Amino acid sequence: MAKKITKQKDDYSQWYLDVIKEAKLADHSPVRGCMVIRPNGYALWENMKQALDGMFKDTGHENAYFPLFIPKSFLSKEAQHVEGFAKECAVITHSRLKSADGGVEVDPDSKLEEELIVRPTSETIIWDSYRDWIQSYRDLPILINQWANVVRWEMRTRLFLRTMEFLWQEGHTAHATEKEAVAETKQMLEVYRTFAEEYMAMPVITGVKTESERFAGAVDTYCIEALMQDGKALQAGTSHFLGQNFAKAFDVRFQDSDGEHKHVWATSWGVSTRLIGGLIMTHSDDNGLVLPPKLAPVQVVIVPIWRDEKQKEIVTEYANSILAELNELDIRVKLDARDNYNPGWKFAEHEARGTPLRIAVGPRDVENKNVELARRDTLDKNIVPRDGLADNIKNMLGSIQNELFQIAKKRMEDHTKVVDTYEEFKTKIEDGGFIYAHWDGTSETEEKIKQETKATIRLIPLTEGEKGTCMVTGKPSAQRVLFARSY
Amino acid sequence: MAKKITKQKDDYSQWYLDVIKEAKLADHSPVRGCMVIRPNGYALWENMKQALDGMFKDTGHENAYFPLFIPKSFLSKEAQHVEGFAKECAVITHSRLKSADGGVEVDPDSKLEEELIVRPTSETIIWDSYRDWIQSYRDLPILINQWANVVRWEMRTRLFLRTMEFLWQEGHTAHATEKEAVAETKQMLEVYRTFAEEYMAMPVITGVKTESERFAGAVDTYCIEALMQDGKALQAGTSHFLGQNFAKAFDVRFQDSDGEHKHVWATSWGVSTRLIGGLIMTHSDDNGLVLPPKLAPVQVVIVPIWRDEKQKEIVTEYANSILAELNELDIRVKLDARDNYNPGWKFAEHEARGTPLRIAVGPRDVENKNVELARRDTLDKNIVPRDGLADNIKNMLGSIQNELFQIAKKRMEDHTKVVDTYEEFKTKIEDGGFIYAHWDGTSETEEKIKQETKATIRLIPLTEGEKGTCMVTGKPSAQRVLFARSY
Repeated sequence: MAKKITKQKDDYSQWYLDVIKEAKLADHSPVRGCMVIRPNGYALWENMKQALDGMFKDTGHENAYFPLFIPKSFLSKEAQHVEGFAKECAVITHSRLKSADGGVEVDPDSKLEEELIVRPTSETIIWDSYRDWIQSYRDLPILINQWANVVRWEMRTRLFLRTMEFLWQEGHTAHATEKEAVAETKQMLEVYRTFAEEYMAMPVITGVKTESERFAGAVDTYCIEALMQDGKALQAGTSHFLGQNFAKAFDVRFQDSDGEHKHVWATSWGVSTRLIGGLIMTHSDDNGLVLPPKLAPVQVVIVPIWRDEKQKEIVTEYANSILAELNELDIRVKLDARDNYNPGWKFAEHEARGTPLRIAVGPRDVENKNVELARRDTLDKNIVPRDGLADNIKNMLGSIQNELFQIAKKRMEDHTKVVDTYEEFKTKIEDGGFIYAHWDGTSETEEKIKQETKATIRLIPLTEGEKGTCMVTGKPSAQRVLFARSY
Repeated sequence: MAKKITKQKDDYSQWYLDVIKEAKLADHSPVRGCMVIRPNGYALWENMKQALDGMFKDTGHENAYFPLFIPKSFLSKEAQHVEGFAKECAVITHSRLKSADGGVEVDPDSKLEEELIVRPTSETIIWDSYRDWIQSYRDLPILINQWANVVRWEMRTRLFLRTMEFLWQEGHTAHATEKEAVAETKQMLEVYRTFAEEYMAMPVITGVKTESERFAGAVDTYCIEALMQDGKALQAGTSHFLGQNFAKAFDVRFQDSDGEHKHVWATSWGVSTRLIGGLIMTHSDDNGLVLPPKLAPVQVVIVPIWRDEKQKEIVTEYANSILAELNELDIRVKLDARDNYNPGWKFAEHEARGTPLRIAVGPRDVENKNVELARRDTLDKNIVPRDGLADNIKNMLGSIQNELFQIAKKRMEDHTKVVDTYEEFKTKIEDGGFIYAHWDGTSETEEKIKQETKATIRLIPLTEGEKGTCMVTGKPSAQRVLFARSY
């Protein structure tokens, strides 16, 4: 099985697609740019959703659901938003098909008066509702999240990383004051950082985007950026302080406790199935997927091995007792007792799927009161005692989670450089990785660097850095910013 | 608050909309026929999803996700399916907008070669994937469910009951034998019946649809039918045995253990946000929503009452101790300590929202070691001892769940009649309710009855009944079938 996966060093890009295929995470669909998320991939997304949803609710948010379709006119209301966003999208123009030649064709009589757009993001349709929901300061804050599908008509797609339709969550909050909205924006950035690091074991850098990389309609876009194994950066989540832009565009005002009518302050924030791409490119290897235990749909698989019916009986009993003990500790465990496949085939399959731990038990293990325990991340195999196995495994899952994070963190640190001259920058950027360098703060210089090196400013760090001079123009720089080539 | 709700007896239809509004379950959206599901409504849907999802997983199903868009040509492949289904739907013809006069317009250069349809249901796109996933009998069964939004271009919409976009789950399974597929269809019907009765406290009748009411592309459509308070029936869930229709249309074959290549057998089954409409019209009253405890987002609300800071302190401490005890028993409890609203306003709000139990505590209750406990379903209020309160409440939630079901069941039984003549039928149908009567099995007679009485055959019971003669034509009838006017 593993041999079907291209090696990372030969072709990272093909390796990525091979891992998705062998782990049965997703397929390309007959609709260009859309994906089919297979049960293994969706179970992973469900675990990610559950962890994030818990964190959203712990910070006071509720879920709701807004319409898939947005009237075309809504997209004209916030000028910056439409400029940066609304161009490449799915447009609905008709509402009926009719029979024709044994097939169907669009009924020209069903043309809509106003076209509808499949939501690329929901600020406009949501702020149109908020106008009706908000009258007084007592109606604020509104802290709402939505789990939904969105569509952006992407030209160059790549499974999970950039697809025409993707699944995501989008938080949309409304506040009485600027201060409260900014605090919310930063709080959600911190939720994303915590989720990325503690669940995905994917270290991230936090910061704020430059004007040219900012979300269309935002005053400030905060982000988490991760570094993939191949040295390219991945924007993994964004949290936007929207100021009063949408409140003004949709005329959302409230009567404050002082009696005055004021425009509401807004935030929005989102992460998507793109995170699955980030997870793959943070931990996986030439044998397939490697998953951090906290998110793995199956944390431990038990593979029983036998040659005859008598062996089958004693091995199955032994395996079942292990299954029961692990279940008791709330470990997600699966017994793979399929008759149609041999143990070697099963080993390769679970390896490709990234199951963190594999227990193999045969007649000799039963006799010696042992099991063979294999770690997916290190590929280490050890004979360990049956006695105390469940606690041993519980601890080991914790260690794996921690070690995956430490390894990824060290790799990120090893590939983070500080450079002073543009010459050095142009050399170092070829090796991939993050580069901290001085920049004069202008979009012109940012664009020049992008054109000449394909590197973009991933973020401006939130902590104040030392002043310096721009590596390109020599003009003053307030602090170093983070560059990388990116997905 | 309650006075804003129209009385059931004055206008049931307006009452329904008023309850949705006052309970803040959903709003109409600016896109005709779409709805905004507000946090209270979505929390209810989340609880329904969680219960159903657990039942699907317990019966061996996995979740996956398939594309929102379906190529137009796919809809031509299964002839019956397209005939019954694919006509009124959202058609995507373009992929880009462009700026024009400060607004946006559709870019005519972005016209698609083949139009895309927003899924009205996913059989076609899913069976196109199954062709690639299924080669051998070892790949079967495939037991997949999808939680998704779907769109049907409905002309007459009604919040939850019939909306252009709605949320649902759709199960799509593939089997090696007809027997196994039929068993799956019936198993999922039973899952729906159990969910409706045990979680929603909504009694249902199970059966199979007549040919004219069958799902387009199905061999048999099984259903659960419930009776609303106003005497109209609601189709609450369907489970379809699809035979080999989709397997043949999409050429999905497998090599069986005997070496032969055979077409796969299929089922599909779904319930939707329509169930929320059914829940409202089964239990609610002129004060607003009434929710069965198992699905209520908040099962118990505690309203503290005080006049001064000193009272506030002792009452809050008392309320917090109750909160802690109920939390310990995993009861979903909320302390409503909002300062901006008075107790009477809060009582009416929680009543409108359908919270099953309300605890009110004031200084005198603290002194006497009591609380005031109010049941939403019966509107009974009682002073009960603080001692043993948590266990008392736990039991009472169980009783409420049970009594709601018994009351609804008795109402359904009281409104279920057996008639022998068409004259009697035409009189009785005016009173609403279910009517069992003999029918000759033809679509012509079914259609005549529908035209003359607005009643449809809701289902043919699964248990064999006594033979007789059709009330309209006098021709032989194999068994009585269930008639009603319906939503």
